[in-house]
Amino acid sequence: MKNKLYFNSNSRKEEQRAFESIQKEQTSIGYYSLPDQDVTQILEYSNTLSEDVTTIAVIGIGGSSLGAKAVYEFMKPVKDLHRKLYFFESTDPINITDLLSKFDVNKTHFLVISKSGSTVETFSIYKYIYSLQSDPTAYTFITDPDSPLEKYAKEISASVLYLPDNVGGRFSVLSTVGLVPLAMCGIDINSLLAGARFIKKSFFEHGYTQDMLLTKAVYYAKNHAQYNINCIFAYSETLKYFCQWYVQLWGESLGKHQRHSAFHVGLTPIGLIGPKDQHSFLQLIMEGTRDKSVTFIKIEDFHENIVIPDITLPHLEMLDSLNNLPFSKLINMQCDSVIEALLDQGDIPLDTITIQSVTEDNIGSLMFYYELLTSLVGELIDVNTYDQPGVEAGKIILKSKLQEL
Amino acid sequence: MKNKLYFNSNSRKEEQRAFESIQKEQTSIGYYSLPDQDVTQILEYSNTLSEDVTTIAVIGIGGSSLGAKAVYEFMKPVKDLHRKLYFFESTDPINITDLLSKFDVNKTHFLVISKSGSTVETFSIYKYIYSLQSDPTAYTFITDPDSPLEKYAKEISASVLYLPDNVGGRFSVLSTVGLVPLAMCGIDINSLLAGARFIKKSFFEHGYTQDMLLTKAVYYAKNHAQYNINCIFAYSETLKYFCQWYVQLWGESLGKHQRHSAFHVGLTPIGLIGPKDQHSFLQLIMEGTRDKSVTFIKIEDFHENIVIPDITLPHLEMLDSLNNLPFSKLINMQCDSVIEALLDQGDIPLDTITIQSVTEDNIGSLMFYYELLTSLVGELIDVNTYDQPGVEAGKIILKSKLQEL
Repeated sequence: MKNKLYFNSNSRKEEQRAFESIQKEQTSIGYYSLPDQDVTQILEYSNTLSEDVTTIAVIGIGGSSLGAKAVYEFMKPVKDLHRKLYFFESTDPINITDLLSKFDVNKTHFLVISKSGSTVETFSIYKYIYSLQSDPTAYTFITDPDSPLEKYAKEISASVLYLPDNVGGRFSVLSTVGLVPLAMCGIDINSLLAGARFIKKSFFEHGYTQDMLLTKAVYYAKNHAQYNINCIFAYSETLKYFCQWYVQLWGESLGKHQRHSAFHVGLTPIGLIGPKDQHSFLQLIMEGTRDKSVTFIKIEDFHENIVIPDITLPHLEMLDSLNNLPFSKLINMQCDSVIEALLDQGDIPLDTITIQSVTEDNIGSLMFYYELLTSLVGELIDVNTYDQPGVEAGKIILKSKLQEL
Repeated sequence: MKNKLYFNSNSRKEEQRAFESIQKEQTSIGYYSLPDQDVTQILEYSNTLSEDVTTIAVIGIGGSSLGAKAVYEFMKPVKDLHRKLYFFESTDPINITDLLSKFDVNKTHFLVISKSGSTVETFSIYKYIYSLQSDPTAYTFITDPDSPLEKYAKEISASVLYLPDNVGGRFSVLSTVGLVPLAMCGIDINSLLAGARFIKKSFFEHGYTQDMLLTKAVYYAKNHAQYNINCIFAYSETLKYFCQWYVQLWGESLGKHQRHSAFHVGLTPIGLIGPKDQHSFLQLIMEGTRDKSVTFIKIEDFHENIVIPDITLPHLEMLDSLNNLPFSKLINMQCDSVIEALLDQGDIPLDTITIQSVTEDNIGSLMFYYELLTSLVGELIDVNTYDQPGVEAGKIILKSKLQEL
């Protein structure tokens, strides 16, 4: 993974301060140690599934689904996976029925994932699916130790796996939450962690990533009042769900009351896919209000070598310059052209991340890079990166509405 | 369709001015008349397709794909459609190969849609697919009269359909661009237009929608410097691609240099899906910077009556209040709870749109409502709503890169 910035933070002192805070956080925040874990037990557990199980279905929402979905959808088009993975993450009845029509419940293993063990969406869906499949061996529950969900699982003699300590939902992709469903489908979770470990080492041990991440974090934090929207513009359809994962990570971590002020702050994440969104959102970046930074993500080698054929279409000869061009080269030329056009504007903060190919270790690197960036920016804009108090009010209102029924 | 606003524009004069401008625009901008068109020819043409054709594939990008995709994906889970619809809208080689693995090229009719007739993405993909299927009867071309693409199509004796005058890509869903692929799959395009016609009449003939749209447009325009991000929070997975269509419509129309100033302006669109994004983006709306308006979209009747079963889970008795609740009721209660929680904040501009059910006329209404809103806001913030000059620079750079090869 390479990262090139087209801006400077000009603030070594702030960079140093942020780095030291993050170093300290490692003792209290759990996600930092995930790349170093031993996954033998997870792999062993995944291998206990019968060959007859052709589908894995995650019943979980937000941090319980977005990470595994991002990795799965990234790898799916390029890897021969031995099971399909579905996600029940909505109470929309049309969606539930539609999903259930896509696979055989009797050949499915369900992963019920809820940290608190009482998420309304997860349990309404679980109850519904349980009415179709009541065999406890068809389920694995992933939750915190001593949660009511753990007690329930033990009561019905179903398997329970645990979340590690101090790992919030949106930072949990490299824990059991993400690793179990991915391993069950045939994703190489050791490579995924190796990619994350590479970034961790490079960041904490004064490697190349440290400079990039610190400069970028300080720049975003210093300029957050002007550039309050941070776009990812990823040039591959495989990164569509990575963008959704990023939106949760960034938005929920950084949209807060400041710890030491009465002010609301927040950085708004936007995920875009190129070249499609050149025909949608690009106009707004190019000529709209100067409130957006953009990070382009490119894939160097798609390992899919289809080429535009050498065909001349009568009356469309002006398109002959495309002939014999590999699509992988075209898409990256499109990306480079947009970067050049935006750089010409002079006042849009840009950087580019290039990953080598569509592999587990590359997505692992990319995700850990974004987790570190989120932690750094959160520290610098003075918020608690790891809580989400703003979502409680709606839950309390719902609870009282339910009790009124 | 019902619309309820929790704010006021307090500016009848501006509302009146905007209304008059839009009334005048009807003579020069083509999309306003689309709801009133006669679609007999489109239906007749669609019926000429052989029964052996099981798949329709659109080769088109941006305005040539997003509208049809939004309607198709909205209706697909609830309607028995007789053909599948796919969209080739990326030069990502992994995506092209993956899509082609999903259907039989020999049972597919391809719609090649390009207004200009020279879109790089569309023609690189077309050339590739043409190398797999060179029978001209497998293609229909949709373009402007006298474009090079029309000449090409005639040269190879393939069918050509035309875009109506003065209809830009992002306003073209109710023209041949959207109607042809949708009709070929079995979507009721007459109902789609009837829904749009209802809104048109209600707006131009002093109906209920007029007040709503004018108040909302003036509020958004007056406050665009503060509330520069406009979120749609749609409580149904079926509206996922409607949100993408909205992002293009809003972002590309309203992110511009002002006509009578040197300033960049822009309103940033964000599409969210509930309840999923309660576990993602909601925290940022609730506690982040006060720069966002939110429009909730609800579906009154999902016509999918699955109910949470009356099951008590040991240790999870606190979830019993969910028992016997239809999912359609739960999802709307979740939406109402979030609305209440946000209203309590007092400084987040909210409104709600309720559509009756998942039908063609409802999505037609919703889309025409958003087109009118876009036109009104564009007029009020002094931009040319219908052009997109900012995307040209990248295209020119790409062209010169291609010629250098």
